[in-house]
Amino acid sequence: MFTEETTFSAESYFASQPPPPTLQHDVERVREFIKRHNNEGRSVVLVTSGGTTVPLELNVVRFLDNFSAGTRGATSAEYFLKAGYAVIFMHRQFSLQPFSRHYSHSTNPFLDFLEIESPADGSKTPAITVTPSKREDLLEVLSMYKDVHNRGTLHTLTFVTVDDYLWLLRAVSQEMSILGRRAMFYLAAAVSDFFLPRQRMSEHKIQSEKGRLQIEMDQVPKILKPLVDEWTKEGYIVSFKLETDDNLLIPKARAALERYGHQVVIGNDLHRRKYEVVFISRKEKTSESTTTADMNSGDFQEYWLRIAIPDTSGGVSPHKVKEIEEDIVAELGKRHASWISRA
Amino acid sequence: MFTEETTFSAESYFASQPPPPTLQHDVERVREFIKRHNNEGRSVVLVTSGGTTVPLELNVVRFLDNFSAGTRGATSAEYFLKAGYAVIFMHRQFSLQPFSRHYSHSTNPFLDFLEIESPADGSKTPAITVTPSKREDLLEVLSMYKDVHNRGTLHTLTFVTVDDYLWLLRAVSQEMSILGRRAMFYLAAAVSDFFLPRQRMSEHKIQSEKGRLQIEMDQVPKILKPLVDEWTKEGYIVSFKLETDDNLLIPKARAALERYGHQVVIGNDLHRRKYEVVFISRKEKTSESTTTADMNSGDFQEYWLRIAIPDTSGGVSPHKVKEIEEDIVAELGKRHASWISRA
Repeated sequence: MFTEETTFSAESYFASQPPPPTLQHDVERVREFIKRHNNEGRSVVLVTSGGTTVPLELNVVRFLDNFSAGTRGATSAEYFLKAGYAVIFMHRQFSLQPFSRHYSHSTNPFLDFLEIESPADGSKTPAITVTPSKREDLLEVLSMYKDVHNRGTLHTLTFVTVDDYLWLLRAVSQEMSILGRRAMFYLAAAVSDFFLPRQRMSEHKIQSEKGRLQIEMDQVPKILKPLVDEWTKEGYIVSFKLETDDNLLIPKARAALERYGHQVVIGNDLHRRKYEVVFISRKEKTSESTTTADMNSGDFQEYWLRIAIPDTSGGVSPHKVKEIEEDIVAELGKRHASWISRA
Repeated sequence: MFTEETTFSAESYFASQPPPPTLQHDVERVREFIKRHNNEGRSVVLVTSGGTTVPLELNVVRFLDNFSAGTRGATSAEYFLKAGYAVIFMHRQFSLQPFSRHYSHSTNPFLDFLEIESPADGSKTPAITVTPSKREDLLEVLSMYKDVHNRGTLHTLTFVTVDDYLWLLRAVSQEMSILGRRAMFYLAAAVSDFFLPRQRMSEHKIQSEKGRLQIEMDQVPKILKPLVDEWTKEGYIVSFKLETDDNLLIPKARAALERYGHQVVIGNDLHRRKYEVVFISRKEKTSESTTTADMNSGDFQEYWLRIAIPDTSGGVSPHKVKEIEEDIVAELGKRHASWISRA
């Protein structure tokens, strides 16, 4: 399925692929958000979430996509908010979002727990009420949602294509550099490894009369490299590695840390990701002299985080079930705090 | 982008690609639904909606997709329900659904119009109420939703991959054949023209170290042919043709009618599809002797349906805006009724 190595560096990528039209507007709003929370001394986490698309046509009908409903990102964002972070939630259009995620149209549709009450007192309009059994759960979610809105601690950004994602990530990380070590990056989005350069896209819908479809895609530049080295030198950076083959998980997570020199890779298997993850990081040295050259395999530590597979058969409220993101965020909060204090 | 013609017929497709595990269960429930409405003499429409995926791996991380939020299908399903049809709504997981479509998490999130009212009368739990300005709209949507649930006129089926879609379509259309001419097919889903045969899929996530990604896909068999000729000989069949190049729209819609011999192709342009569609059908003959051989270009008629582009700037309720699907469904309802009466 593969041909020879291609050569898009981050630099040549941004020089050749056009930015999304809303970029400047988005960046201005993010800048205000960061400035406000920086003034208040709050830590800010960028949570990326959901899959990116790779359009095959300029007038896009078909695209390559990465599997992700955005559960990891949306859930984690909620726990970061509870932990006192200001959250920039950069997510794929229509992927799950914090709070509303509890009421997916498919699994827990909100229209199902609203009731129409005929007016008893002669008023004209019937009242809409919440089914009693759902009231407590909704009240809890709604209270958190209102609180976050009132305090202005959540800022939402939307992407669709891998181009949108890369341009936004670069711009937001550059804006976050003013936060110094109080910036965290929680890169949970499922970003395509491949893309179709705009210069090779067909203008119109690819026609199907002519036989087999062949698509040839280039590698997306390894964006963690300039993120770590240039855009946000002091940010605490957490990346994710999703695999379906267990044998590849740890080696590939270590390779990513070696290659990019950031703080944590969270490895997860596609089928066990809701109950088990592994944090891969460098061992903390007594001396502060750790350099890239020190990182042989003995220099890494693995920290496994597991929860029991929840039993949801007994009608437990969906949002009362233990979620592994609660523990992931708690662990990262500790590590981030310790890392800030070591500045 | 294309190589030589491949040869998956519908027959060879179903013989070589495995059915989805839930197929039998889904079919049994659909059978009951159809039987009940057939007994009550009701017309039944199958509405397909949303895009299909083409997984690239058996443990799927990446997939090809077709652009569709499911607006056309979800909106039309609502108008078919209003028109008295029983509706089998076969849609892509997480695509828009009738009624809840008015409250997308992104554009009109329902948490935004719920309010928490502190108890005035000393009761312990605060009440949840609907923001007054949103109450009337919600009441209208909620009333329709409850009514449809109470009458049992909506049955929902879910697909993700193009395989799921094809297996379900075959099974459901076969079940619908007992309805005779009272069956309508409204095939609004954006179905992939290409697929990757299971036999050529890689087991695990495709690794990106090795350079460019090359994908070669086979054509999906033209499923309208057996649908018309074998599975549901008397069904009234409406297919859709979406193009981005205007010059192709009419010729391709006509070619589809000639090829498959069904009743209507609705052509729409990607960018104008919310305001303009064209119905392509055979001209009605005074004699009933129309055969495939009669269908030269002079035998087709075009019926253009247009609505004014709505002005939503004045804060009009989203679901009070005129939707073209209302007119599409009204026109099809008339044609279907006339076609039933000519049996």
